[in-house]
Amino acid sequence: MGKKYVYAFEEGSMEIKNLLGGKGAGLAEMTRIGLPVPPGFTITTEACNEFYAQGEKFPEGLEEQIMDNLSKLEQKIGKKFGSTENPLLVSVRSGAVISMPGMMDTILNLGLNDETVKGLIKQTQDERFAYDCYRRFIQMFGNVVLRIEHYLFEEVIDKFKQERKVVYDTELDVSALQGIVEEYKKLVRKEIGEDFPQDPLKQLMLAINAVFASWNNQRAIVYRQINKIPDHLGTAVNVQSMVFGNAGNTSGTGVAFTRNPSTGEKVVYGEYLVNAQGEDVVAGIRTPQPIMKLQEEMPEVFEEFMKICNLLEQHYRDVQDIEFTIEKGKLYLLQTRNGKRTAAAAVKIAVDLVKEGIITKEEALLRVEPEQLDQLLHRRLDPDARVEVLAKGLPASPGAAVGEVVFDADLAEKLGKEGKKVVLVRTETVPDDIHGIVAAQGVLTARGGMTSHAAVVARGMGKPCVCGCEAIKIDYAQKLFKVGDVVVKEGDFITIDGSTGQVMLGEVPTIDPELSAEFQELLSWADEIRVLGVRANADTPEDARKAREFGAEGIGLCRTEHMFMDPKRLPIVQQMILAETLEEREEALAKLLPMQREDFKGILAAMEGLPVTIRLLDPPLHEFLPNEEELLVEVTKLRLQNGDPQEIAEKENLLRKVKALSEFNPMLGHRGCRLGIVYPEIYSMQVKAIIEAVVELKKEGYDVKPEIMIPLVIHSNELDIMRKLTVDTAEKIFKETGVECDYLVGTMIETPRACLTADQIAEFADFFSFGTNDLTQTTFGFSRDDAEGKFLPYYLNNKILPDNPFAVLDRNGVGQLVKLAVDKGRGVKANLKLGICGEHGGEHSSVEFCHMVGLNYVSCSPFRVPIARLAAAQAAVKTRTNRK
Amino acid sequence: MGKKYVYAFEEGSMEIKNLLGGKGAGLAEMTRIGLPVPPGFTITTEACNEFYAQGEKFPEGLEEQIMDNLSKLEQKIGKKFGSTENPLLVSVRSGAVISMPGMMDTILNLGLNDETVKGLIKQTQDERFAYDCYRRFIQMFGNVVLRIEHYLFEEVIDKFKQERKVVYDTELDVSALQGIVEEYKKLVRKEIGEDFPQDPLKQLMLAINAVFASWNNQRAIVYRQINKIPDHLGTAVNVQSMVFGNAGNTSGTGVAFTRNPSTGEKVVYGEYLVNAQGEDVVAGIRTPQPIMKLQEEMPEVFEEFMKICNLLEQHYRDVQDIEFTIEKGKLYLLQTRNGKRTAAAAVKIAVDLVKEGIITKEEALLRVEPEQLDQLLHRRLDPDARVEVLAKGLPASPGAAVGEVVFDADLAEKLGKEGKKVVLVRTETVPDDIHGIVAAQGVLTARGGMTSHAAVVARGMGKPCVCGCEAIKIDYAQKLFKVGDVVVKEGDFITIDGSTGQVMLGEVPTIDPELSAEFQELLSWADEIRVLGVRANADTPEDARKAREFGAEGIGLCRTEHMFMDPKRLPIVQQMILAETLEEREEALAKLLPMQREDFKGILAAMEGLPVTIRLLDPPLHEFLPNEEELLVEVTKLRLQNGDPQEIAEKENLLRKVKALSEFNPMLGHRGCRLGIVYPEIYSMQVKAIIEAVVELKKEGYDVKPEIMIPLVIHSNELDIMRKLTVDTAEKIFKETGVECDYLVGTMIETPRACLTADQIAEFADFFSFGTNDLTQTTFGFSRDDAEGKFLPYYLNNKILPDNPFAVLDRNGVGQLVKLAVDKGRGVKANLKLGICGEHGGEHSSVEFCHMVGLNYVSCSPFRVPIARLAAAQAAVKTRTNRK
Repeated sequence: MGKKYVYAFEEGSMEIKNLLGGKGAGLAEMTRIGLPVPPGFTITTEACNEFYAQGEKFPEGLEEQIMDNLSKLEQKIGKKFGSTENPLLVSVRSGAVISMPGMMDTILNLGLNDETVKGLIKQTQDERFAYDCYRRFIQMFGNVVLRIEHYLFEEVIDKFKQERKVVYDTELDVSALQGIVEEYKKLVRKEIGEDFPQDPLKQLMLAINAVFASWNNQRAIVYRQINKIPDHLGTAVNVQSMVFGNAGNTSGTGVAFTRNPSTGEKVVYGEYLVNAQGEDVVAGIRTPQPIMKLQEEMPEVFEEFMKICNLLEQHYRDVQDIEFTIEKGKLYLLQTRNGKRTAAAAVKIAVDLVKEGIITKEEALLRVEPEQLDQLLHRRLDPDARVEVLAKGLPASPGAAVGEVVFDADLAEKLGKEGKKVVLVRTETVPDDIHGIVAAQGVLTARGGMTSHAAVVARGMGKPCVCGCEAIKIDYAQKLFKVGDVVVKEGDFITIDGSTGQVMLGEVPTIDPELSAEFQELLSWADEIRVLGVRANADTPEDARKAREFGAEGIGLCRTEHMFMDPKRLPIVQQMILAETLEEREEALAKLLPMQREDFKGILAAMEGLPVTIRLLDPPLHEFLPNEEELLVEVTKLRLQNGDPQEIAEKENLLRKVKALSEFNPMLGHRGCRLGIVYPEIYSMQVKAIIEAVVELKKEGYDVKPEIMIPLVIHSNELDIMRKLTVDTAEKIFKETGVECDYLVGTMIETPRACLTADQIAEFADFFSFGTNDLTQTTFGFSRDDAEGKFLPYYLNNKILPDNPFAVLDRNGVGQLVKLAVDKGRGVKANLKLGICGEHGGEHSSVEFCHMVGLNYVSCSPFRVPIARLAAAQAAVKTRTNRK
Repeated sequence: MGKKYVYAFEEGSMEIKNLLGGKGAGLAEMTRIGLPVPPGFTITTEACNEFYAQGEKFPEGLEEQIMDNLSKLEQKIGKKFGSTENPLLVSVRSGAVISMPGMMDTILNLGLNDETVKGLIKQTQDERFAYDCYRRFIQMFGNVVLRIEHYLFEEVIDKFKQERKVVYDTELDVSALQGIVEEYKKLVRKEIGEDFPQDPLKQLMLAINAVFASWNNQRAIVYRQINKIPDHLGTAVNVQSMVFGNAGNTSGTGVAFTRNPSTGEKVVYGEYLVNAQGEDVVAGIRTPQPIMKLQEEMPEVFEEFMKICNLLEQHYRDVQDIEFTIEKGKLYLLQTRNGKRTAAAAVKIAVDLVKEGIITKEEALLRVEPEQLDQLLHRRLDPDARVEVLAKGLPASPGAAVGEVVFDADLAEKLGKEGKKVVLVRTETVPDDIHGIVAAQGVLTARGGMTSHAAVVARGMGKPCVCGCEAIKIDYAQKLFKVGDVVVKEGDFITIDGSTGQVMLGEVPTIDPELSAEFQELLSWADEIRVLGVRANADTPEDARKAREFGAEGIGLCRTEHMFMDPKRLPIVQQMILAETLEEREEALAKLLPMQREDFKGILAAMEGLPVTIRLLDPPLHEFLPNEEELLVEVTKLRLQNGDPQEIAEKENLLRKVKALSEFNPMLGHRGCRLGIVYPEIYSMQVKAIIEAVVELKKEGYDVKPEIMIPLVIHSNELDIMRKLTVDTAEKIFKETGVECDYLVGTMIETPRACLTADQIAEFADFFSFGTNDLTQTTFGFSRDDAEGKFLPYYLNNKILPDNPFAVLDRNGVGQLVKLAVDKGRGVKANLKLGICGEHGGEHSSVEFCHMVGLNYVSCSPFRVPIARLAAAQAAVKTRTNRK
């Protein structure tokens, strides 16, 4: 006998999840612990991969193993596949190793045909039910396997509903359902030129084939790209005997979380629909009832359900996301998996589980994805803002979003790429809308519940979402929606609050988030465990205060160029740049000195007691001058229109200077300490401003820790010269004022050459701060602006590069250089302080890398400080580093 | 007793040249082998360095050691320093370890004052001679030590000459010279507010101090920058008893080379001036007589001189550059050193010395500086050009130069930096003109001989130079020169031929050089010894043929973009770039295919039997489109002038596309294989053109070896994809034509990331070719265009960087990456072929590095192939590598 491709549920377990997929392993596990699971079997991911390896053909032996398991299933259930007396019906569902909800295909009620439907009637004595199953089956099979457009089926149903003057499917009677079945079969014949397949075995094999194939449908591919799931995993296929939630009013189907996935509250949370099959809930077509209603409607079922929830949480040691069906008062479980949750819920659940004694603090720290925390660190509505609520829906994913109304996903993507903020508004969303949700600030739907597609996807992405807001009436053709008399057109601004479900007209002011008590507690555990320090990048006292509030232990990067960009100062900065002589330049610098000194006093005072790394001027000087192109157009116009000769002369002179300073490759041009070397007076002024600020603060009783940072060093000679300039300037001020202060002088390490010669550079440095943005650009030889706008998306979509190296530190390339520099630097100076201040400092995989190579700290934007704290703790847990 | 700072000549030798400097060691060595050298002593370079270390003060004990040696010298000579009866006079000269001719200061006749001049008269019975010495001494001391401007002394002499109606100094009588002395003393008093120092010992100490100080005068600093001489070496000072070339008509002074330094011919070559002191020859004020004239004038002296020349050549095993003085018929040697020579001479001398059995082939190879060969590989006058000679001077440094006439060094430098070709025309040049000579194509002087300043400097730099062209009369005020009636103004073009001494009006056509028989022979020795292969970078069959003629063993880089730039093709290339659809693009590519195929046939055929590395398209596509700025001005004008709406629309459309393709940092943009990845159809077309060319040539009986090179790889996935595309394309053509050919697929290694992941990349590569231009740009994080135009000159002038890293491979940074890539690449593929095709491939230090890290070949421009062959041989000799 060949490879085992098929496992009955009772043969499997969580341990072979890689073979069975998440759903299959969950069903096996539940079967093993004695929960009521309809019997069935799982076809392995290996079979799927073989299927692709052989050019989309079933591997040898698979069909036989399926037939074998099918007949065992028949024996177990006491029904027969294709029987006209007592037919076995099955569901066929995908189930990947890493859950991809809604991305791949599912078929229910398989096994029905014109004959077995009669068997189903005999079996159930319910003709309406049997035809409801049959029309559902033709529709799903027609759509998924035969690739007939969904809306064509919907048109048929709508026609019948109109004729019968009913609103819901459940109101259609037997004759209507029989009519629909006949129309569906005609539709199939018309669309594919063949009759709907009547042979149940053929149906089964085609369905399995289709599920395999759905691994590579467009939306699954996109989902994997976004969620960084490898393409080679493949999906398993679950074939399970049907139980029927649509078998009347003591039947139903639902989904539930063992705790609230939005808030984390320890309350079972979910929805169910009476007399419905699974797809009705997920698709969000009918708005379902909250799970608590079940307590009234079917108290025994509810009690059993609660017991099972508890059992599953204890078994899996985590919140479970459960699919269930009630068939004539009997509860069946169709799926369980660890529940996706919002960041707030993840934090609360992790902390609660520790307190309930179910997991350890270390485990709790690993339970929260650092990137997910971003959600909690997003903005919410300003409580002081006057809010006029236009409509209210379900609070499906928390946070406030403001943007232009957009009604289709393609446009949302287009505008999003142009940098516009949009809110995607749809009656309901479908998996094909995913690229629009990615691009939008938030999502608003008119139909669907808390577990509808829009809600699940938005929560996963941390986007605000309001669902099931039935008050809004969308008119796609006119590109508007109405709420009563109010008309909202495409392009109008709205604000949605995913925490309350409110929808408002216009742009409501939003405010920064605050951290919950659980969040604070989790972060305090992180601080106990992590080894890596966490600082923030901040240029203003306000940012510094915010960073401190979020737990930053210092400023890792204070950029001085933003201070130069201040509109009040820009004319002086330009005067400095355009100076023809050293005297003129020094005159302008003298005016800037007191301003810079005040800047530094503010930020140093705000960070009292903590280190503040101030980087001297970095960008090329032409960035402070008017745009060359605009100036060129202006001069051309003035000349043609015989403008004022003096104005022409002045503008031409300015243009000449702008041109003289312009660069072919500004990123690789005259910037960083190359400015300080050629124009030492600029850096002198900045150092003077820093040291004078420090001296004044010291006199005022402050304890400040300045660290002066020289950017873009490529050779130790540069740092030698710049260090001397700094020390000389400082010593002079100390002598003049009689006040002495401690300060450090260090450098950015942001070119490959700096890494390669870090031993030589370290001789003149008290610290290194890795500028991984520039280091990535130079190591890859591509500029971020050009790459991200041109070829990088292609590289990522085609997996030529695994990640955007500007988001996730490239360990293989850039990481080698960082490691080299760390080793060389510490080799000559064991106590060299090492940090990182590129954007990677707030990204969890990069933080882990920084931990591994032994940096002292990471520095990131203030709002990512909590993320970095958690990521640093996770790194410490993972590498079992001793507690500090 | 402290450190020994002073060595008498008889105490020294060549072995302690680092202490004694070149001149001091040479004098010691000549003294040791018994040649007639006036006795003296040398103050060490160590003393000079101590002098600077102590803030320009004599180190402890130096003065005592000088006094001690001075009194020994008095005993040896039998004269007394400061005596009014029989005074000892000395010369005080600088002498660095590495010769810096004319850069530092010399003082002759030291020891004279109002009293000792009378002693000199008693000693010599020659009053005119004594006053001639005294006025020379005051002038030199006044200029060098007291820093009084040279021209002020010249004005005094000129006044006397006019009064006495004489042309030459030698025609001035005693009374005139006495008058000059008095005027000089007045001049000194007026300029420095003190009398000319009369105390001989004070004179001596001041003079030594001045020579030490001259190590850091402006021209010495510039000379060291240009010649890459370290600043910390310091100069020695030689104090030598005077002998007098100005003691009448049986006296004289001269300089000579033991062989012709211009051609290498084995004939003593030099000049002397009767009744003159050394400075008269070097300064080029009087035009001296050829050395052969000495045979007639003083046959015995000449015979002795010839014997000494021979002895010195045997002793030093190289051509000597000798300074001598004849005092009343007796020959004295004042200096000997290895003679500077033109490249042609260096080659001939090295080959001849081997044939004469004096040196080995290996030594001969080390005797020629590879960079110097550049001279021989420069252009000469087209022999077919009709040449009208305007004037004729001395052929001081070979080669033809064409440029605008410029009369001052500052302007020459300015225009040179703007990229203009200029010829510097001066009556005579002085060390302060050096920056102008650097910037000029060539130098023309009206006065001075073959060993004048202009001639020596120009030969050293390999610049064409015509000297002593007395027919040209320069009027600096009017900015013109005249030759008879012909007036040549600043900005007019002239052509000079430094091989014949001819000066022509206008731009005479020039042609490529050919290699002399000796050159060919030397290179054949180089080929025997070197391990490193040498290829050329060539884009056309013509360049390929030239490369082959110069000994290239293949093409290391054939760029395909120049083929795209052909004006006939550019419209098709633009059509391809601006295509809105794949079909449109493929249509344009189909038109380019046959053209590219012919290109490749041409170059492959020209290199039959040798490998040709063809690089697929590299530059960003916008380089082939019209200039954005010009287009913008055009559109603005058209709009304002209400131009043709259709034209406006078309231009605006074009502008929109140009803008869409424009990049912030083109060097780091969408180029290299990033084009091939996103537009595979472009690379497909190129590969098709190559393989079709190969197949056609094979059918015609050619043996061709194509190597297809993928540029700018940063990740092995890129090369994987591009290799597949190449192989698939080739296989298809082989199948269609039934002809199979060998070819390699490899990649440029030109980003740090490619070096860091070379092991992964090597899996898909048959060869690596290091693109050290881009690798230098990315490793340093500066773009060549921006750096060289902005801050790099500052960095080099201030020695922040030791060399221009675009000229000399930066071993410390870039070199580490190359080494890493070599090790990683060979680690996974031992037979990986490794080369370099950046401009460094033709620079000797970089070639040595390539040899050391074990590359297979270097590739450089065709004209640098011989340089690379020699440099590779030198590297092999130096590292004692086994012969191949």
